Amino acid sequence: MEANYAKRRKAVAQELQARGLDCLVVTHAANWYYLTGFTGESGALLVSGDGARLLTDGRFTVQAKEETKSIRIELQKGSLYTALGELLRKEGVKKFGFDPGQITVEQWKALRKGAGGKSKGVEAGRIVERLRMRKDAGELAVMRKAGILADEVMESAIKMLRPGVREREVGAEIEYQMRKRGARGPSFETIVASGTRAALPHARPTSKLLRKNELVVLDLGVILGHYCSDMTRTVYVGRAPKRVRGWYKAVQEAQAAGVAAVKAGVSCGMVDGATREVLTKSGLEQYFVHSTGHGLGLEVHEEPRVARGQEFRLEPGNVITIEPGVYVEGVGGIRIEDDVAVSARGNEILTRVKRDLIEL
Amino acid sequence: MEANYAKRRKAVAQELQARGLDCLVVTHAANWYYLTGFTGESGALLVSGDGARLLTDGRFTVQAKEETKSIRIELQKGSLYTALGELLRKEGVKKFGFDPGQITVEQWKALRKGAGGKSKGVEAGRIVERLRMRKDAGELAVMRKAGILADEVMESAIKMLRPGVREREVGAEIEYQMRKRGARGPSFETIVASGTRAALPHARPTSKLLRKNELVVLDLGVILGHYCSDMTRTVYVGRAPKRVRGWYKAVQEAQAAGVAAVKAGVSCGMVDGATREVLTKSGLEQYFVHSTGHGLGLEVHEEPRVARGQEFRLEPGNVITIEPGVYVEGVGGIRIEDDVAVSARGNEILTRVKRDLIEL
Repeated sequence: MEANYAKRRKAVAQELQARGLDCLVVTHAANWYYLTGFTGESGALLVSGDGARLLTDGRFTVQAKEETKSIRIELQKGSLYTALGELLRKEGVKKFGFDPGQITVEQWKALRKGAGGKSKGVEAGRIVERLRMRKDAGELAVMRKAGILADEVMESAIKMLRPGVREREVGAEIEYQMRKRGARGPSFETIVASGTRAALPHARPTSKLLRKNELVVLDLGVILGHYCSDMTRTVYVGRAPKRVRGWYKAVQEAQAAGVAAVKAGVSCGMVDGATREVLTKSGLEQYFVHSTGHGLGLEVHEEPRVARGQEFRLEPGNVITIEPGVYVEGVGGIRIEDDVAVSARGNEILTRVKRDLIEL
Repeated sequence: MEANYAKRRKAVAQELQARGLDCLVVTHAANWYYLTGFTGESGALLVSGDGARLLTDGRFTVQAKEETKSIRIELQKGSLYTALGELLRKEGVKKFGFDPGQITVEQWKALRKGAGGKSKGVEAGRIVERLRMRKDAGELAVMRKAGILADEVMESAIKMLRPGVREREVGAEIEYQMRKRGARGPSFETIVASGTRAALPHARPTSKLLRKNELVVLDLGVILGHYCSDMTRTVYVGRAPKRVRGWYKAVQEAQAAGVAAVKAGVSCGMVDGATREVLTKSGLEQYFVHSTGHGLGLEVHEEPRVARGQEFRLEPGNVITIEPGVYVEGVGGIRIEDDVAVSARGNEILTRVKRDLIEL
């Protein structure tokens, strides 16, 4: 693993050289993990051509020493961003890159004050995120396992569904199963949304009982070996009326069209368009209230965005979700979501529970 | 509940008037929940003397309408912070407050661009956080329940501990029990740290087996009715050697001294000093690598900080954790943590599992 981290830091150093920067200030946990293996929740990493140093507080220094190699660990004294600025000053850094999307206005002020006037910050956003988009073989191997684990948990969750079960019981069982099967935990708060609540794309499980003749949306994902999966299936409790079957068919077709569009060279906007076109033809576009998907990896939402107008062109190694849905206020909702990896010759679907309408 | 939200918004409006601001831009989910009841994860709230409006995207608009009263819901088009700026411009807001600790440099740029030159932002941090520090009777009633639920889960978790059980199994069972007993879930990733891993204050559960003759730190909390609890107990698997007993006794005394110091009028720095003094007298200060505690409420870490030099003086309604610990690299760690509410006459401990050394 250390070879991977070193390789990634080297890629950062090359980017810095190209931009004429002395070092990069990394202030986001997923990014410092990607570059060093450090899993602590508070700190900051400096990466330069000469090496890397990690600033963190006393809660994390032992852990940092155990988890990293070839990184100098600096014990943070006082507040993080002031200490970070002081470190830049002490090191005589003249020009450092930082990500304006990963530092608050307040933190940035503290950093600049600590750094003094001789150390200049330059906006250099998404350098690490861009590297992270392109998963290597080792990362893909882990993400396949995270997908399979989500499949297993989804299948066991679907078996639990019946009238009288509470959404919250289903949610509790889902997350228990994840951990029992070796996941660190859920990659986001599991969604179990039944009846009219299924019209809320981000509903949390409540004490509501499942009832006959309603839709249930299950959206779940695991963190396994630091990588996330994310999938959704929608089930009907009872025999679905014609209208619901029509909606389901449209979402299923839209999702299949989105997956089919995923290949190297295609823009994310075009993938979004592929799902949207099917729902528009079915007269359901106004009920599709979000974008088609998002990148997936160390974080459950990462780059690239798969939304209208996104020009990024997919490359082998990208992993994205395809998750169109329709949501009808007062009635319910339907969403189908899979994780799809872009390969050299097309794509590979990482989550495979069957997508046909299940009627219980 | 709506009466509470309206009362809190009124308190914000009074603060705005005192500062000569037209409105406050609220960009933090716990804060907009506190002021409106909206539980969505993305959006922004504008609060002024004339009323409040909530900007959120299509995933959350139905939910926003269901969860709030007397709030205008605005459908966000395009990116959030640009849309927020445009809303300020459209409303003709001249001077708005924002929290520089809750907006990134990038978001702030987008907001300013959207707002145009006529709308001016003024740093106005922690206005809502300061209100949130002082819990009302209804909030305290919920937090008592969150504390009791943590107690129950801790007691059931301690019963699971024995050589051969994996940290991760204990973690999975803890979070399952939380949900089964009605919690929304854990308020942070449960810590189960055994043996030398107990020397890492923030260790996540791993596949490590518990062994005879080691310490196990259990740190857990629930979210119940939106409010958090947070508690830690440390158990010895086997009969503790004299050295460990000595450390345990010192931590227990330090924790008791910290709790005893909690009352209205005492500064947070003095509370921190109370635990630190005991550990210093025991010659263990260098092993106490973090601060004594933190505020607790809608978030598991909120104001006030209970650390060296903190001048904030406790008031009735504040709820803080008291959690000194010692961590000896290569050996293990000990931490004892309770949630303590400041009352008119002293304090009330919300978490009550017994604190004496448990030897299994």
